[in-house]
Amino acid sequence: MVNSKKQIKSNLEYLRKLFIMPDSPDKFIEFGHELLEMIHDFFQQKGGIHSSITLPELSEIFNQTQLPHEPMLIKDVLAEIKTKVIGHSVKVGSPYYIGHMISAIPYFMILLEMIIAALNQNQVKIETAKASSFVEREFVAWLHRLIFNRTERFYQKNIQNPRIALGNITSDGTIANLTALLVAREKAFPPKKGFSSVRAEGIDRALKQHGYTRGVILVSTRGHYSIKKAANLLGLGEDNVIEVPVDHMNKIDLKKLQKRIQALQGRGKKERAKIVAIIGIAGTTETGNVDPLKDLAAISREIGTHFHVDACWGGSALLVDEYRELLQGIEYADSVSIDAHKLLYCPMAMGIILFRSEKDLNLIKHCSRYIIRRNSVDTGRFTIEGSRPFSCLKPWAALKIIGREGYGLLFKRAQECTATLKTILEGCGNFETLNVPELFILAYRFIPEKVRIQLHTWNEQLEKHWSGKNAKELRKNIRKVNHLINALNIKLHKALRRDDTTFVSRTTLESTRYRPQKIVVLRAVLINPLTDRDILQEIVQTQNRIGLDIWREFEPVYLRIMKNSGPEKESTSLRTAEQV
Amino acid sequence: MVNSKKQIKSNLEYLRKLFIMPDSPDKFIEFGHELLEMIHDFFQQKGGIHSSITLPELSEIFNQTQLPHEPMLIKDVLAEIKTKVIGHSVKVGSPYYIGHMISAIPYFMILLEMIIAALNQNQVKIETAKASSFVEREFVAWLHRLIFNRTERFYQKNIQNPRIALGNITSDGTIANLTALLVAREKAFPPKKGFSSVRAEGIDRALKQHGYTRGVILVSTRGHYSIKKAANLLGLGEDNVIEVPVDHMNKIDLKKLQKRIQALQGRGKKERAKIVAIIGIAGTTETGNVDPLKDLAAISREIGTHFHVDACWGGSALLVDEYRELLQGIEYADSVSIDAHKLLYCPMAMGIILFRSEKDLNLIKHCSRYIIRRNSVDTGRFTIEGSRPFSCLKPWAALKIIGREGYGLLFKRAQECTATLKTILEGCGNFETLNVPELFILAYRFIPEKVRIQLHTWNEQLEKHWSGKNAKELRKNIRKVNHLINALNIKLHKALRRDDTTFVSRTTLESTRYRPQKIVVLRAVLINPLTDRDILQEIVQTQNRIGLDIWREFEPVYLRIMKNSGPEKESTSLRTAEQV
Repeated sequence: MVNSKKQIKSNLEYLRKLFIMPDSPDKFIEFGHELLEMIHDFFQQKGGIHSSITLPELSEIFNQTQLPHEPMLIKDVLAEIKTKVIGHSVKVGSPYYIGHMISAIPYFMILLEMIIAALNQNQVKIETAKASSFVEREFVAWLHRLIFNRTERFYQKNIQNPRIALGNITSDGTIANLTALLVAREKAFPPKKGFSSVRAEGIDRALKQHGYTRGVILVSTRGHYSIKKAANLLGLGEDNVIEVPVDHMNKIDLKKLQKRIQALQGRGKKERAKIVAIIGIAGTTETGNVDPLKDLAAISREIGTHFHVDACWGGSALLVDEYRELLQGIEYADSVSIDAHKLLYCPMAMGIILFRSEKDLNLIKHCSRYIIRRNSVDTGRFTIEGSRPFSCLKPWAALKIIGREGYGLLFKRAQECTATLKTILEGCGNFETLNVPELFILAYRFIPEKVRIQLHTWNEQLEKHWSGKNAKELRKNIRKVNHLINALNIKLHKALRRDDTTFVSRTTLESTRYRPQKIVVLRAVLINPLTDRDILQEIVQTQNRIGLDIWREFEPVYLRIMKNSGPEKESTSLRTAEQV
Repeated sequence: MVNSKKQIKSNLEYLRKLFIMPDSPDKFIEFGHELLEMIHDFFQQKGGIHSSITLPELSEIFNQTQLPHEPMLIKDVLAEIKTKVIGHSVKVGSPYYIGHMISAIPYFMILLEMIIAALNQNQVKIETAKASSFVEREFVAWLHRLIFNRTERFYQKNIQNPRIALGNITSDGTIANLTALLVAREKAFPPKKGFSSVRAEGIDRALKQHGYTRGVILVSTRGHYSIKKAANLLGLGEDNVIEVPVDHMNKIDLKKLQKRIQALQGRGKKERAKIVAIIGIAGTTETGNVDPLKDLAAISREIGTHFHVDACWGGSALLVDEYRELLQGIEYADSVSIDAHKLLYCPMAMGIILFRSEKDLNLIKHCSRYIIRRNSVDTGRFTIEGSRPFSCLKPWAALKIIGREGYGLLFKRAQECTATLKTILEGCGNFETLNVPELFILAYRFIPEKVRIQLHTWNEQLEKHWSGKNAKELRKNIRKVNHLINALNIKLHKALRRDDTTFVSRTTLESTRYRPQKIVVLRAVLINPLTDRDILQEIVQTQNRIGLDIWREFEPVYLRIMKNSGPEKESTSLRTAEQV
């Protein structure tokens, strides 16, 4: 009995020593040094991007169905993390990884994370976050000014004005978009006799009291899937996200948008739709293109709806004057979302939502007795989330360390990389680029030269004879070949993942020169400043080599299509095939 | 021209060196070492908990309304952070800080944050998170088993089964609760002829098609404010969160709950309410008490509604067998939310939402073309958030390092601390404890002994003569004195914040022995393992000293109340006053 009690006591002492306190810091420093080396090793490691382990094998490693009971030594757990976790992590910082909106990050970000964790402030409340609340407000004001550029007086008045919020720091872009649409929903159904607010009474009563049968959100087909999520969450329903087609530049088709709006407004009394928001995209996730924001702003103003710009990808480009024209009109938005873990090069994850009017966020202001009191200065009054980390320290410090000037250089570099990849792909012959890149994203596909030329020829013929039996035949052939090349690119993408020396992502676009046919494309995001021309060349060579390899299986099918494509086209295609 | 180009190039080289790469790691290690020392210094610093700087002074420090243009050296920015930010942060890890659900954290957490940032995995997708996706699933399965304890076979089958999710890692408890209620909303309005889902068609159509006029959520008055936020977000409306009164133990009053349910179900055809969810609380934020979960489960089952348990605070207590009885019934919940940054001692912020049925999260499953494809293994298919950090590494590793055994010791310690504080407060005489603590939270107030005894006397008299003119007079006196003591405690709390050597929080409870009168209480959360008896004694002494000081201003008002309280009571109170 005495013994066991003694053991517990000594264990508690051991546990207490795990906690940070003035009188036992040595272990912290010691492990910290070891870990810095371990992290450094990780970045030096050669080898595959995704590690060669298979998913079933990983399932076998992480299959403990019971919680650990007895304590383990920190060094043993760190060793386990090193082997099992770090060893099988995706090297998203590799310059050969150009597949997603993720990149190498500046190393000082890791140091900032240490500070954030050590301070462990909770941004929800001033009692748990003092200077950090002010840092957050300053950072939000910076970005607000970058986008909306209101007067110096406006910012001086509001930068640290606790009665309002110019925006929120969120856990990611999805919550940023959700916040914007929450505010938009509130504004769409203002208080009136017999109705206090959507917030209090719900969407059902809001529609009824305002005489509508549905609330809709308009966005292009390039809209991020978080918009549908938000429509679901907000009780509007995913079906009420109306997707407007895009043009060949992946920008929303304004004429079609106008038509949709007219159709929505012109309906009979049986169905009356309230347009809750129009969303413009400043950097579509799939292609990086920017909607005509100025026009969207004008349309939104005309019909009196909230104009939100999803600039999660491209918003940070405003740091560089050169991109202001591309994003022209963003300053008329009611709200703008930006992701810090994208073009601000912060680690996962942080979103920002900004509102042009300092009054908008007051619509969702809330409080509670034990925390975030009504007349407090607590940041948590305005946010969807409750407890929030001091994430904004990262972009706040990064803007100081890198500066607008530095971001300018990084974006210039990204732009050059994108142009370089395009040139290399087009020079190779066996590729076809499928979007006009504006913000560092290139969509393309592998397509053997002779097939590419054949499609080109057919397309030219089609332009001359766009109707009639012949045209129908041509369209059928184009569809068949694209179908085959789609399958080829899916297979290529899978093979590239197995090869694992390079990485691009893959998606499907209906907006290419073959529209409305859906085309499988490879997608490169070129923001890693460590990626250079040589690396890009290596990536293309790898894709070309593996692509040609796989093509051998596909070629017989292609030849069969050609054979059946009618005497006239057959001869053309055979000639083309011989030329290649 | 040549010069300027050269300058840009050299700058780009400087920038590239900020990014982590194999060939320039030295700076990372160097700064890392410096930073470890800096963090260590922060923890060694003596002085106030909140730093003495005022909020207006902080406003002056963080008032740059323009983004930084030119780059600054990392060391200069770190120095700025040290002075301006770290110097004015709240020492939430101080053992004298017992005010919020935040504590010192184990130092290895900071090391884990370094790993998380260095790996920079994005949990949304397997292509950006390989081993980390599996770690997340393993961790979720551990907690699922801890709560629901389904069969070993169930966990073996599902732990790494990509077709389902047993739960999600969220940015915090608010999003965890929101996820639960999103699923509950979907289940409340299942597909039927002419109606596909709430998700697709929205809440308005859901109500209409199912023949309801409102969807309501039932929770006690101790419910966290995130429940109202969720009701707002989900389009149900905050007014449709029905708050059921609690008993003197701060547990939901089951009889009143039953009555509310009957009232909701029994209404005429004009208003028909669908009960979307009943919420039980396992550790109320204000008092740490646990609802009768077993009864709530039975009631929910009977009326066929989703039963969610908000265990953000107390869920982790299940790690220790001793607490299982207190949380009995949690295993019948449909969903349970837990915060890792509370009793799992992780840094800000991470929530967990778990669903008993492995099928529930499939109701909100989504996908998109460029990412999280339909048949993928991507974790992002099930979450409200999009991009998510590898946060779960922290509790996953902590459970290994600390073990259930270790958490048992930490909670035992927290329990002892709570009991110790109660004893010290009651021994002092000038305090009154106002809840029966179950999970490490004590609500109490400063009240000079003679006043406490007077209130006690009046209460005793009231028990004898609970009606009539005398009783009315007694009640009036009690109300007046409590009103005064409320003001005293608000003033004391503000003075304690100015004193800044110790910290407790403050709230208002309607559930004390003086109910329904609202009583201002000080709130202590006793989970910091570095807090000990001596420190608690110091904290109470400080509160007592400052409290008595402030009392001098309040006493004349008290004496006036006593003077007007009628001859009989006056003599009692004077006698009491003399005794003190």
